[in-house]
Amino acid sequence: MAGLSERVGQLDETDELSDYRERFVKDPQSINYLDGNSLGRLSHAAREAIMVATDQEWGGELIRGWEHWTGLSYSLGETLASHLLGAAPGQVVVSDSTSVNLYKAIMAARSLVPNRRVLLVDLNDFPTDRYILDGIAKEHDMELRLVASSMDAPLTTDDFAPYLDDDVAVVVLSQVNYRSGALNNLAEIADLVHSVGAMLVADLSHSVGAMPISLDDDEVDFAVGCTYKYLNGGPGSPAFLYARARLQSELTQPIWGWFSAADQFQMATTYEPVAGIGRFLVGTPPVLALSALKGALTVVCEAGIERLRAKSLLQTDLAIELFDSVLEPHGFRLASPREGASRGGHVTFEHPSALELSSLLMQHHKVLVDYRVPDRIRFAPSPLYTSFTQVHEGVMALAKVAGV
Amino acid sequence: MAGLSERVGQLDETDELSDYRERFVKDPQSINYLDGNSLGRLSHAAREAIMVATDQEWGGELIRGWEHWTGLSYSLGETLASHLLGAAPGQVVVSDSTSVNLYKAIMAARSLVPNRRVLLVDLNDFPTDRYILDGIAKEHDMELRLVASSMDAPLTTDDFAPYLDDDVAVVVLSQVNYRSGALNNLAEIADLVHSVGAMLVADLSHSVGAMPISLDDDEVDFAVGCTYKYLNGGPGSPAFLYARARLQSELTQPIWGWFSAADQFQMATTYEPVAGIGRFLVGTPPVLALSALKGALTVVCEAGIERLRAKSLLQTDLAIELFDSVLEPHGFRLASPREGASRGGHVTFEHPSALELSSLLMQHHKVLVDYRVPDRIRFAPSPLYTSFTQVHEGVMALAKVAGV
Repeated sequence: MAGLSERVGQLDETDELSDYRERFVKDPQSINYLDGNSLGRLSHAAREAIMVATDQEWGGELIRGWEHWTGLSYSLGETLASHLLGAAPGQVVVSDSTSVNLYKAIMAARSLVPNRRVLLVDLNDFPTDRYILDGIAKEHDMELRLVASSMDAPLTTDDFAPYLDDDVAVVVLSQVNYRSGALNNLAEIADLVHSVGAMLVADLSHSVGAMPISLDDDEVDFAVGCTYKYLNGGPGSPAFLYARARLQSELTQPIWGWFSAADQFQMATTYEPVAGIGRFLVGTPPVLALSALKGALTVVCEAGIERLRAKSLLQTDLAIELFDSVLEPHGFRLASPREGASRGGHVTFEHPSALELSSLLMQHHKVLVDYRVPDRIRFAPSPLYTSFTQVHEGVMALAKVAGV
Repeated sequence: MAGLSERVGQLDETDELSDYRERFVKDPQSINYLDGNSLGRLSHAAREAIMVATDQEWGGELIRGWEHWTGLSYSLGETLASHLLGAAPGQVVVSDSTSVNLYKAIMAARSLVPNRRVLLVDLNDFPTDRYILDGIAKEHDMELRLVASSMDAPLTTDDFAPYLDDDVAVVVLSQVNYRSGALNNLAEIADLVHSVGAMLVADLSHSVGAMPISLDDDEVDFAVGCTYKYLNGGPGSPAFLYARARLQSELTQPIWGWFSAADQFQMATTYEPVAGIGRFLVGTPPVLALSALKGALTVVCEAGIERLRAKSLLQTDLAIELFDSVLEPHGFRLASPREGASRGGHVTFEHPSALELSSLLMQHHKVLVDYRVPDRIRFAPSPLYTSFTQVHEGVMALAKVAGV
């Protein structure tokens, strides 16, 4: 594979984003980290933001730190909206976990179509999405329909159509499947969902930061997403929530915390939600975590989502090319779409010994990938800090441990 | 007041906890900080824990950091339970905001008495408590009853009795009122609430870390509380939730996130909650914030809650003694109970120019207190880092700005 090595070297040499790896803190083992879709790396900017929030703001300014912190949930939302989500201002806030935000978004969507009694989700969607829906269905005596899907390919409108009728209130769908990386067409599915009068809640956890997203143009009603994967916000960093502007005045969400009140510090007797997206805030947000995210996002936004997507596609294309030549012969199956346009930021390889192999990969080659039950290895180059050489070496190492 | 100055000096000299102020990061202005019931100071231990979680764990170990993080919500819960809450193991977890935890706790309490349709709360309780209840009442077609109370005194069973009947599902009560610092008797009120078959949810935000709490002995059913006040967990640090062990197997809480699933990484099709208190977890917890809290709690636990309470009472007694001699003549009213046994960790002074005075206090005397609408100043010595001299100087400064 001399020709390939040369080509890989050339890809790194011409990579406009290659300097971005210096923006991240080095780990002591120099790990080839292919798990950034599970937890992104620590950037120097995020580290610095944590230190500023801790030492200068909390330690130095004490309660007056709130002068910096009050608007964080909103300003981070606007950064996400304009750089990553394709959303006009006033539609995104950052607070709480993805699961809590999903709950609020689904309940809000449901409040707009109150007489319908069916919730719909892909059977292979991420567990928390299905569980949150299940809880809502049980609490409100609704029916949860699970859409049968081929685990490794995008869902089409044909997959959804048989489950849709005018009793469906809310459809939840991940833009990119957490396991296969299959990329669903939100615009087409939103159109179908709206044709029966239902609402679409999109989970962007595995797409945000990996590819351009166009929530407004796609006419998605609500969206939530995680910030600790491709956005590198840090472990358990707070999630975002998008609610389409024209829906905001009509909806209600069920958790009426003081951060969503119209005049928070008036301590009023009756609750009145603030106008706009702020009504999705609940309690005091985790300021240190928001600050880390603020730092982390500067790196993502500076690199630019179009360039990140272009490099990501080249990297996952390379991984699949290598899969064909060195992994398939060792009993691997490609468990992701082959076409870039149908894929998110990671590719998945299926192998009966996936668990053991992923452990050997780290042990012998310092390559860190993500194992998923029962037999899958997720392989996620991050265009911000993964080189083409590391993609090459990662796949070759996997072939090596499988071939022993 | 020469005699008093001497006595204050003596109190500082004999103060067993005086060394603890060295455990906290100094602010550049050397502020006399009497607002620790709003946001506690940064301790060196919390700072160190943030750095370890950021650099060593996230930056250095990457995804493998979860080996440290997975149990954090539980282990912090146990620390709180045994050192501060008077709770046997297996009843407390830390995650989400106080408001989100209140929602889960109230909904869980309600699930145990499903046919009752009344919720009850003190009219003067903290807004988020009332708002969360209001949202639940609206969503589930329940009635929210507001208990009329004298704003500045503890609530008695006589205050509650007229509102209680066998249609009451859940009573929410703050152990210490956020405004007056009045301390309510949870045991007596729990007894009364149980006598009509209802459930008690206590909010411990203004009592935890300020005084010993005995949730098990007091037979409280559920409790939540904030960790960024007397526990010094940092801005927006995650809240805790207590659920009495014998209730856990029967209850349901409505937000079914993957962190509460019995076998989280099996990614099962159907949701089954984990046995025990873990069913109150929802999504990925904010790890940096949990880590800060872990560090912060070492300081509180080492000092010991009995010693903290004893010093706190001496400090607020001193403040009230000074109030009598120097504040009352300037038109202040004591808006807190006079007896230590009826007070939490802060005292409140009412004055028509409270807003202006609190601003002058900081401007001219570097004394930072908390203003609350419309006319109150909360004055909160923290026994961990406030000296008796600072209490003295704080009140004298307030008298001075009011006397100009």
